[in-house]
Amino acid sequence: MSLKQESRNKAFEGSLTKYSFESTALGGLTAKINVFLPPGASSSHKVPALYYLAGLTCTEDTGAQKGAFLAEASKQGIAVVFPDTSPRGAGVEGEDKDWDFGTGAGFYLTATSDAYKKNYNMYEHIVNEIPKALEQANLGIDKGKVSIFGHSMGGHGALSLYLKNPGHYRSASGFAPIANPTECQWGKKAFSGYLATPEEGKAYDSTILLSSWPQDRKLALKVDYGSDDQFYKDGQLRPEAFQEALSKAGTQGEVEIEKREGYDHSYYFVSTFASEHVAWHAKFLKV
Amino acid sequence: MSLKQESRNKAFEGSLTKYSFESTALGGLTAKINVFLPPGASSSHKVPALYYLAGLTCTEDTGAQKGAFLAEASKQGIAVVFPDTSPRGAGVEGEDKDWDFGTGAGFYLTATSDAYKKNYNMYEHIVNEIPKALEQANLGIDKGKVSIFGHSMGGHGALSLYLKNPGHYRSASGFAPIANPTECQWGKKAFSGYLATPEEGKAYDSTILLSSWPQDRKLALKVDYGSDDQFYKDGQLRPEAFQEALSKAGTQGEVEIEKREGYDHSYYFVSTFASEHVAWHAKFLKV
Repeated sequence: MSLKQESRNKAFEGSLTKYSFESTALGGLTAKINVFLPPGASSSHKVPALYYLAGLTCTEDTGAQKGAFLAEASKQGIAVVFPDTSPRGAGVEGEDKDWDFGTGAGFYLTATSDAYKKNYNMYEHIVNEIPKALEQANLGIDKGKVSIFGHSMGGHGALSLYLKNPGHYRSASGFAPIANPTECQWGKKAFSGYLATPEEGKAYDSTILLSSWPQDRKLALKVDYGSDDQFYKDGQLRPEAFQEALSKAGTQGEVEIEKREGYDHSYYFVSTFASEHVAWHAKFLKV
Repeated sequence: MSLKQESRNKAFEGSLTKYSFESTALGGLTAKINVFLPPGASSSHKVPALYYLAGLTCTEDTGAQKGAFLAEASKQGIAVVFPDTSPRGAGVEGEDKDWDFGTGAGFYLTATSDAYKKNYNMYEHIVNEIPKALEQANLGIDKGKVSIFGHSMGGHGALSLYLKNPGHYRSASGFAPIANPTECQWGKKAFSGYLATPEEGKAYDSTILLSSWPQDRKLALKVDYGSDDQFYKDGQLRPEAFQEALSKAGTQGEVEIEKREGYDHSYYFVSTFASEHVAWHAKFLKV
């Protein structure tokens, strides 16, 4: 599981490095990640890390190139880790047929259906495998200070990974996250394909997961979505359901959910609020 | 020449709109541009404009998506205009054969060779045609306050269009510009293909153009390039030749040329210095 450096670009006085490694979680396939290290990060000066999970059709490059996260991450002294959105080249029949299922659409879960369970285990890949690989490589990332954010399907990933692992991530945020996947078309399609039974999808639904969050632990959640987001209008995101579940749970913490007037689902929306999200995570990561 | 709106995205409280129009300069082909308007721009509150010329293989989307210019442009109240890098679909034999010539590689000149002169007139397109179309559309851009910048081939375009038109642009800057194209492979190939005689290339070479800049007019020029830029190392950019010509010309003005340690030719380099360039242009545009 040792990291192989594919490329390195200096950026914002730090560095953006692409690594590849043989992923056990993804059934032995080669996984790629981009890692931004802020200036000064080293094995003797470790920095916190923010994981960015991208959306449908994206890769490990999308957030690094279009997200506009690096300026603020450099300023705050935070590493940003950009995983891919699915295994690549699993060879499952039909995995390249649709843009919203299969390749580029791993949904950050552990597949249990016969066709997908060998390779489609992005949950394990993100939560455990990448952090371990980064730790082994001794890049200067503090494994005890980790937060997570993402866009659309990646927003679903960020919120659900946070909620499924109380205490593991310090904070989670989403740009237009799929917040209630068991009740939208994208989620239903993903769960019925990747999981042996659709019931299992509930364990990855952030709106449902809120009710099992420990009452004695404070939440740190931030969600932004645009009022002109067509996927929001089509019912794919369901932030209102998430907000309602939050109110019902009554859990304490720092929670911000904002509808941004006139914004859509694109990276023009994401980049507009990018610095704000990174600075918000910094509050939790730098204590 | 009326603009047709293709899409609009809210970004940084302003808007990024893609327009198409039938371009006379490009021989009747459809041209596309992206226009960022900062918040508050309108026909009754006109704002200055900064033109961004992209490099080889790029389109009107590249700078808008990867350049990270919009945050500072929004803050400064400046419009940013993103043209394409060549005509599309001219149908000239061989125009799609190479990545550094033809489609995606218009070099911001007026072609005179028989094969290319009908369509490859990006110079006229940028200097006159787009500003006129924007003025007719009454978008809220002040036609009297214009500056220009660009990356690589687009840096060549920005510097040469500025130097060929004293007084037209208030300032020009380049990220890793091709600063002396008659003396590098990219430039030689472009000029020998687009121009009837290679001699004509001198009229588009920024290093040569410096000597004909009016002595009584102050220069406003900024150039950044990376020490680890492979194209710089290969002699494609030649910033030293440009700097030497500047010294020889002895022209007064505000001139900044900086070699950035460890940076390469990518948009990770461009985006790192994006805000700095926009803020620098703002000094000239907002007086």
